[in-house]
Amino acid sequence: MREVFQTELDSLREQLGDMCTQAAGAMRTASRAVLTSDSELASTVVAGDAELDAARDRCDETAQRLLALQAPVAGDLRLVLTAVHCSDKIERMGDLAAHVADTARIRHPECAVPDELSEAFAELGRITASMADRPVELIHNPGSGGFQELNETDQAVDDRHAAVLATITDPGWAHGIPCATSLALLVRYYERFADQAVSVAKRLDFAVTGVMAA
Amino acid sequence: MREVFQTELDSLREQLGDMCTQAAGAMRTASRAVLTSDSELASTVVAGDAELDAARDRCDETAQRLLALQAPVAGDLRLVLTAVHCSDKIERMGDLAAHVADTARIRHPECAVPDELSEAFAELGRITASMADRPVELIHNPGSGGFQELNETDQAVDDRHAAVLATITDPGWAHGIPCATSLALLVRYYERFADQAVSVAKRLDFAVTGVMAA
Repeated sequence: MREVFQTELDSLREQLGDMCTQAAGAMRTASRAVLTSDSELASTVVAGDAELDAARDRCDETAQRLLALQAPVAGDLRLVLTAVHCSDKIERMGDLAAHVADTARIRHPECAVPDELSEAFAELGRITASMADRPVELIHNPGSGGFQELNETDQAVDDRHAAVLATITDPGWAHGIPCATSLALLVRYYERFADQAVSVAKRLDFAVTGVMAA
Repeated sequence: MREVFQTELDSLREQLGDMCTQAAGAMRTASRAVLTSDSELASTVVAGDAELDAARDRCDETAQRLLALQAPVAGDLRLVLTAVHCSDKIERMGDLAAHVADTARIRHPECAVPDELSEAFAELGRITASMADRPVELIHNPGSGGFQELNETDQAVDDRHAAVLATITDPGWAHGIPCATSLALLVRYYERFADQAVSVAKRLDFAVTGVMAA
């Protein structure tokens, strides 16, 4: 019984880690699609999002089975609850990557991102995808501190978010209103994606320490 | 033991219902603040959001205690897991209401919403706040069908969302880019608030039926 239990817990960790890897990959591809105006590539991200939805459902089922049959306590219970919370958040990261990709399709054949902002968005893509990759290590080598680390990285995202908003609302903006409103939403998708990664790290810390960071 | 268990389950229902009522109230006040450009009223919503955060934490603690001490199964387990999921979503609804309110402060002393859109936003406020109220009844008089009902209401939100985006990106738009980008985000907060209410109803249906709607 105990062995089955550990196997199921390992499976839960595996599932969560795989979901993070998928979300990171989706964000990388979505960013490439939106920067190169590649609507076919964008479509693969939007279509692929269903896989993350299904992975979330499987994770939920594993957690529910573990709770019903094994009645875990203490650290094991915290891990299961962390999986319940995090799978929701990672699924949402997939939605946000799909929104990034969809922006490429909506603005096609124009490029959603004008040249003067392409480096800022390329950076946002790199940073946020790496924030989705980081929990994979935190899941497999548990230790606290992931929340603080990702929270610091998130500051870099917030800075770029503010810089993009300043650029598109500047009186000198030359690309019109539809482009500006689309970019206001686009940069928000990156920001929210990063926020979810921070929340995931916070829950993973909690699973280890039993204390929720403020 | 069984009696304690039922009392704790009732408390969980009560907590969830109260959170929904709070989120609905926050959205009503936030909408009034943004439509009347009342930055003091807006500040009360932003400050009050900490209460919903604390309520979510209490809900999480109750759920964790129930799982650890009572090892619920079947419908009771589904209710506890539903509370875990829903408290996160309702807490997020509070954040979104605070974002709506904050828009009033950011745009102050200008009004965030020009006259031609004030009826659309007033409607969005009314509809979304009522969507947050609805789960209170669903929690206390469990039955399925809440998801379908709120999903239909959500269509009205999506229609208004699309209409606002069309207005602000129309070549005849006369209120400039900062106002347009601010409105693009503002209308998204309402839309996301409604989405979370639909998710809450979906989970409440699941708690009753054991089947997750597609």
